[in-house]
Amino acid sequence: MVTLGDLVAHLGCEPGTADADIELDAIAPLGRAGPRDLAFVSEVRYLDALKDCRAGCVILKAEWLDDCPVPCVCVADPYLAYARLSRLFETLPRPAAGMHPSAFIDPTATVPASASIGPGACVDAGAVLGENVVLGHGAYVGHGARLGKNSRLWPGAVLYHGVVLGDDCVVHANSIIGADGFGFARGADGWEKISQLGSVRIGNRVDIGAGVTIDRGALDDTVIADDVIIDDQVHIAHNCVIGRRTAIAGCVGMAGSTVVGEDCTFAGQVGVSGHLKICDNAHFTGQAKVARKIEEPGNYSSGTPLEPTRQWRKNAVRFSQLDALQRRLVKLEARLNALDEAAGDDD
Amino acid sequence: MVTLGDLVAHLGCEPGTADADIELDAIAPLGRAGPRDLAFVSEVRYLDALKDCRAGCVILKAEWLDDCPVPCVCVADPYLAYARLSRLFETLPRPAAGMHPSAFIDPTATVPASASIGPGACVDAGAVLGENVVLGHGAYVGHGARLGKNSRLWPGAVLYHGVVLGDDCVVHANSIIGADGFGFARGADGWEKISQLGSVRIGNRVDIGAGVTIDRGALDDTVIADDVIIDDQVHIAHNCVIGRRTAIAGCVGMAGSTVVGEDCTFAGQVGVSGHLKICDNAHFTGQAKVARKIEEPGNYSSGTPLEPTRQWRKNAVRFSQLDALQRRLVKLEARLNALDEAAGDDD
Amino acid sequence: MVTLGDLVAHLGCEPGTADADIELDAIAPLGRAGPRDLAFVSEVRYLDALKDCRAGCVILKAEWLDDCPVPCVCVADPYLAYARLSRLFETLPRPAAGMHPSAFIDPTATVPASASIGPGACVDAGAVLGENVVLGHGAYVGHGARLGKNSRLWPGAVLYHGVVLGDDCVVHANSIIGADGFGFARGADGWEKISQLGSVRIGNRVDIGAGVTIDRGALDDTVIADDVIIDDQVHIAHNCVIGRRTAIAGCVGMAGSTVVGEDCTFAGQVGVSGHLKICDNAHFTGQAKVARKIEEPGNYSSGTPLEPTRQWRKNAVRFSQLDALQRRLVKLEARLNALDEAAGDDD
Repeated sequence: MVTLGDLVAHLGCEPGTADADIELDAIAPLGRAGPRDLAFVSEVRYLDALKDCRAGCVILKAEWLDDCPVPCVCVADPYLAYARLSRLFETLPRPAAGMHPSAFIDPTATVPASASIGPGACVDAGAVLGENVVLGHGAYVGHGARLGKNSRLWPGAVLYHGVVLGDDCVVHANSIIGADGFGFARGADGWEKISQLGSVRIGNRVDIGAGVTIDRGALDDTVIADDVIIDDQVHIAHNCVIGRRTAIAGCVGMAGSTVVGEDCTFAGQVGVSGHLKICDNAHFTGQAKVARKIEEPGNYSSGTPLEPTRQWRKNAVRFSQLDALQRRLVKLEARLNALDEAAGDDD
Repeated sequence: MVTLGDLVAHLGCEPGTADADIELDAIAPLGRAGPRDLAFVSEVRYLDALKDCRAGCVILKAEWLDDCPVPCVCVADPYLAYARLSRLFETLPRPAAGMHPSAFIDPTATVPASASIGPGACVDAGAVLGENVVLGHGAYVGHGARLGKNSRLWPGAVLYHGVVLGDDCVVHANSIIGADGFGFARGADGWEKISQLGSVRIGNRVDIGAGVTIDRGALDDTVIADDVIIDDQVHIAHNCVIGRRTAIAGCVGMAGSTVVGEDCTFAGQVGVSGHLKICDNAHFTGQAKVARKIEEPGNYSSGTPLEPTRQWRKNAVRFSQLDALQRRLVKLEARLNALDEAAGDDD
Repeated sequence: MVTLGDLVAHLGCEPGTADADIELDAIAPLGRAGPRDLAFVSEVRYLDALKDCRAGCVILKAEWLDDCPVPCVCVADPYLAYARLSRLFETLPRPAAGMHPSAFIDPTATVPASASIGPGACVDAGAVLGENVVLGHGAYVGHGARLGKNSRLWPGAVLYHGVVLGDDCVVHANSIIGADGFGFARGADGWEKISQLGSVRIGNRVDIGAGVTIDRGALDDTVIADDVIIDDQVHIAHNCVIGRRTAIAGCVGMAGSTVVGEDCTFAGQVGVSGHLKICDNAHFTGQAKVARKIEEPGNYSSGTPLEPTRQWRKNAVRFSQLDALQRRLVKLEARLNALDEAAGDDD
């Protein structure tokens, strides 16, 4: 339970039309919020729903105050306020400090008393955990890897040897940081493996989803800068460098040695070729095929629109004839020009 | 070993031309089935291979009876019969009930005696397992999560806190249900994490492949209805709702808050944008880019056909000129119309 | 530390202009290599950078010898030499032989004294490990599965029951070999699961990245031939057969029963339909949609080029009109032909 007074204090804003004693149990969507729920309006299109709102309190912009039938608090950015307040309603207790007896900690590892090490977790030789680190059940920290303070590995997450994770990071379950990059040379009889001698360096406040893979570098490190956020099942190949605050949505795949700027966004399933340079503030829509360098900030896309399959098939066949079609058009233009000229001559 | 009598009893059908005493050790493809193998014909195109079949028994449709040189059993749907019989030939023993001494079960968790808890598995505080639940090696069930009766987690599968899984479900190895949805608000200095306060609710008889991620909801739950089947490496983002019997093939990615109807099918690598509504009985071919709502049942596709790269490159360049090309065509049409009119005037 | 003499002996080549006593600590990229680093030049485009190189020794082709300001060793294929030498600079110690007390080994499993079994790893009944096998923390080997000599599972990797992995293989963290193929028959009430009675057979010297899924076969086995290399997050469905030395980059998805030849390459995120046959030496660019059989070696592609979103939208709309556009062009051609003929008649 949280009081409105707590919320207002947490946001550092004015109490608006609401009483500081209002008690709130949860955050709920506008449509189903009841008297003990907090709700939010972040966009104009939700104002209609606001009219019937029964929430205990609504966070909104001052300009929408008059549309609100229940107590409300005004802020400049309600969505950001929602993000900040959401933590107050988290019910999962933080794991207690201490080491589960079934965890295996190498005697040469550094584990502060404030750390919480779950059942079956493993910290290998020479690894160093910062204050308040949480390792979930079965998480693994390899030889000489380092986690900064307050960072958390959820169950089954794996940091290979030498990986460095900054402060206040989250790595969700079964994600793998520092597996070998995909480096092989072709020999006479097959593939000759290239030992991946670099590592992965991850900054502070980096949030990594579940089932992610970020490979270690071949010679230099793979680098993820501060404040990058990465969704589930993203793959980042060896020696990529991802700039600050860049956001990468689910199932994006990035090939090796690509350098991405700051404040970029990648929507789901975007594929990025290797050895590219992508400038700051470049944004890619879902499934975009990024196979060339990007030097201008802006939005980029590729692909074709969804169509009923029968219709799509016809158009897809024509795609394979596009170059021929274009040539036919050019020919037609030339013939028409000739006709026009001939007609001109006639006059 | 199974007798033909067992099979017929299991299917509840007539014995056909086969002797109930025939002993069968395995199911085999038509082409290599021997006298102790059971084989199936489910489509007309396999009738050719049937002629040379040496199987101990063949399951087929009554109309193909005369084409079969060996004993056979007739059923209305041989492929469905194959599915039902396949279980009789499963050789992997069900794990014995009981708790491996290396498993960690919180004293406040509920684990029936019929459950089988593998080495290193962990059941956290307040979690509740139904009868006959099987947890594989290293599987994790978070705080307050619930598994219905007969459900099984294979090794390394992770259910986060509060996740609810129904009866008779399967979750294959290293899949992750209930990690945080990808929710962040942009603040002045970077991304402000939105606590994901919802959970994941999964119905009965849901089959989930390996390496899948299904994220917990932001406020409401992410919901997977009864009888949904999900292949490996699928990603379902926060607050998606998937309708009954919908089938999702490998590597599909679905962005947040999308609502999918019943009996839909998604082929491999389909990408679905967020906040869409997809009606019942919509079907998507591989790699389809689903970026708009679907209101009509049917088959949908996107993309371009595979071509030799040299040829593809030419056509791909033309794609980028398509709008210009169309304008040139329109101009040509106008010029030709003008010519025609002029010609008409001449007459 | 490695001496140049060691390198030359390892490669079996001539010492070139370099002194056998030179000591080297690491391999480094040409641009930042210092006097105790080894560097490589594998392509002409790096010759410019070579001029300022300060490396202790450079490996290059004999024809570039005169461009090198520091000691160098000449080889026919510098990239291959780099691969071979990279192993000499690996600093991670091989895990010691022996079984961690927290590992669980079924009494009926075969584990040689030379094997290294990490904390919390599990080897189930009847499984057989070859000499020098390494199982990382929490890795799982199912009933009757077999690993050939020198093979290694990194933390959390899972081999299901009956899976066979050859000699000298690597499976990176949390990869899953042998989970159920996605096989279901449609019944009256929903999906009827088809027991996946086949397994997975993997040859020798196969390298498998992190977060990979390779499903067990329905009746026959899924097969990965010798010397195949597979990057992170690849999905290979049941009953695929992958030919020798084929290389599969990150996030590729392959549907069931597809047979791939030898020496093929799949770039990132390629999607392959089921039941296809792909010949030897076929190569696919990133995100290619492989939905038909391939009978000619060569390079194949699909998709459209990346464009600024505003421009892409216009072209994408035109794609949906391509068939209509083509028909308009044909009509124009006919009209122009008619005009030409009429003009001819006039003469």
